[in-house]
Amino acid sequence: MDVTPSAPIGPPAAVLVRLDPVGPVLVPPGSPLLRADDAGILRGDGIFERFLVIGGQPRHFEDHLVRMARSAQDVQLEVPGPDAWRAAVAAALGAWQGDEEWSMRLVCTRGPEDQGTPCAYVLGQELSGSVMRQRQAGVAVVTLARGMPSGLGQDAPWLLLGAKTLSYAVNMAAKRWAESRGADDAIFVGSDGVIWEGATSAVVVSQGGRLVSPPASVGILDSISVARLFTAAEAAGWDVSRQDLTVDDLFEADGVWLSSSIRFARVHTLDGKGLPDAPSHEELAALSAAS
Amino acid sequence: MDVTPSAPIGPPAAVLVRLDPVGPVLVPPGSPLLRADDAGILRGDGIFERFLVIGGQPRHFEDHLVRMARSAQDVQLEVPGPDAWRAAVAAALGAWQGDEEWSMRLVCTRGPEDQGTPCAYVLGQELSGSVMRQRQAGVAVVTLARGMPSGLGQDAPWLLLGAKTLSYAVNMAAKRWAESRGADDAIFVGSDGVIWEGATSAVVVSQGGRLVSPPASVGILDSISVARLFTAAEAAGWDVSRQDLTVDDLFEADGVWLSSSIRFARVHTLDGKGLPDAPSHEELAALSAAS
Repeated sequence: MDVTPSAPIGPPAAVLVRLDPVGPVLVPPGSPLLRADDAGILRGDGIFERFLVIGGQPRHFEDHLVRMARSAQDVQLEVPGPDAWRAAVAAALGAWQGDEEWSMRLVCTRGPEDQGTPCAYVLGQELSGSVMRQRQAGVAVVTLARGMPSGLGQDAPWLLLGAKTLSYAVNMAAKRWAESRGADDAIFVGSDGVIWEGATSAVVVSQGGRLVSPPASVGILDSISVARLFTAAEAAGWDVSRQDLTVDDLFEADGVWLSSSIRFARVHTLDGKGLPDAPSHEELAALSAAS
Repeated sequence: MDVTPSAPIGPPAAVLVRLDPVGPVLVPPGSPLLRADDAGILRGDGIFERFLVIGGQPRHFEDHLVRMARSAQDVQLEVPGPDAWRAAVAAALGAWQGDEEWSMRLVCTRGPEDQGTPCAYVLGQELSGSVMRQRQAGVAVVTLARGMPSGLGQDAPWLLLGAKTLSYAVNMAAKRWAESRGADDAIFVGSDGVIWEGATSAVVVSQGGRLVSPPASVGILDSISVARLFTAAEAAGWDVSRQDLTVDDLFEADGVWLSSSIRFARVHTLDGKGLPDAPSHEELAALSAAS
């Protein structure tokens, strides 16, 4: 019987660290961690952050801690303090035995409904093949209605429009819808025609020497990867601007990208139509990677 | 030192049954069940149902199985078949050791992201004190903007407007917002002024001898408790109707209720203003309980 040497050997690398009151505790990643009555599972009631680790360095980790604290405030959840997260991340970094580049999540749920004790953990995982492919080859995207007008978040904080909660079912459904249409991802559009964000990313366009991305006030997550890219791009001579975009603006741009902490991917196809070649792609991908 | 005899003794009753391929497995309810990388937790990607058990009888269980199958289709999730759920529910019923009346949940997540094996379980819990209180004393409610117009769901299935997913963070935030305003619950209103639903319930009003509740096509969960109540009320001589309601309609009704599988509660206060006494409350509460 033949052996297939290219088949993956064993399960993918993973690392799991639970934040206990006494300090970080390494837990076997394949073993159960959350109780069945955790509000994080029954209600999607919790928050998270996700970022890359490259060569042992978590990228923009402190920025993610700051954003996590904002999300915690939005959902009125008491999460462990920054030092507890730093200790848990250090433990995860020390225990990782996989690739040079990987994904790290900080997760905090509200915990079992009658207890009020959050369940907090750090989860390290390998990057999926699709992330690698999409960085290289770009993505086809469909625009999907988000159903709401822009700017609603300020007056309706209960809609949690800028919070990074565990309630991502709509984002996942949008991705599945896109895939059922032969695309890779979705960009949400407000009922006023204003571009919001990708299902798990922010939108960036180039217009001549200018980079534009929608402001968080539209009702979207405050993107750390875009903030970092814009700082780096400005230093490299680009004009950068936060302003409303429309679907027409995407079609008329020199380049369109989806930017998240995990990938910077060029949009090569929008609603079935090919987009220009984005001559600045290599430069911006490099700036994003170095930012 | 005095002993307080009314203090609860021990942890609240609970029962947990995992749906395994070989059949239902009783699991200690306080032990961890879900992996840290389950999409149900990382993405709120899963579905659930919840209903009462009274005197050993799960209420409207078959209706909930049908609705769960619809939610599963909405999120493209392969959940265990009806017989597997029936066996697990039977195991939970047999193992319950708490009050005569309790709450049962059917939960199914998408499972660990790289495995595609759903995690399915039945969770039995005691009813909270607030459920009991609200059935008796009614609720104060605030209306909150849902941000979207009615009827959007048909054209935008990725918004999952009629699916009962685990992504309930907005519903929970709406409840917390209501509580911060001194109320008990929230009713969502569409951007077109049409009443949608409570944060975890449906809305019913009485207008003379007529009961009205919004149709599911507004963009809301298809309420089993309202369907059952309407059947019982019609047999008792009420006219029943599914039609759009506005906030003004709520103020002008003889009575307003929040109806879910867990509680039928009169709304006595809406946006800080007292509502009429709802002379038909006792009759409708009895019809709801018997339906």
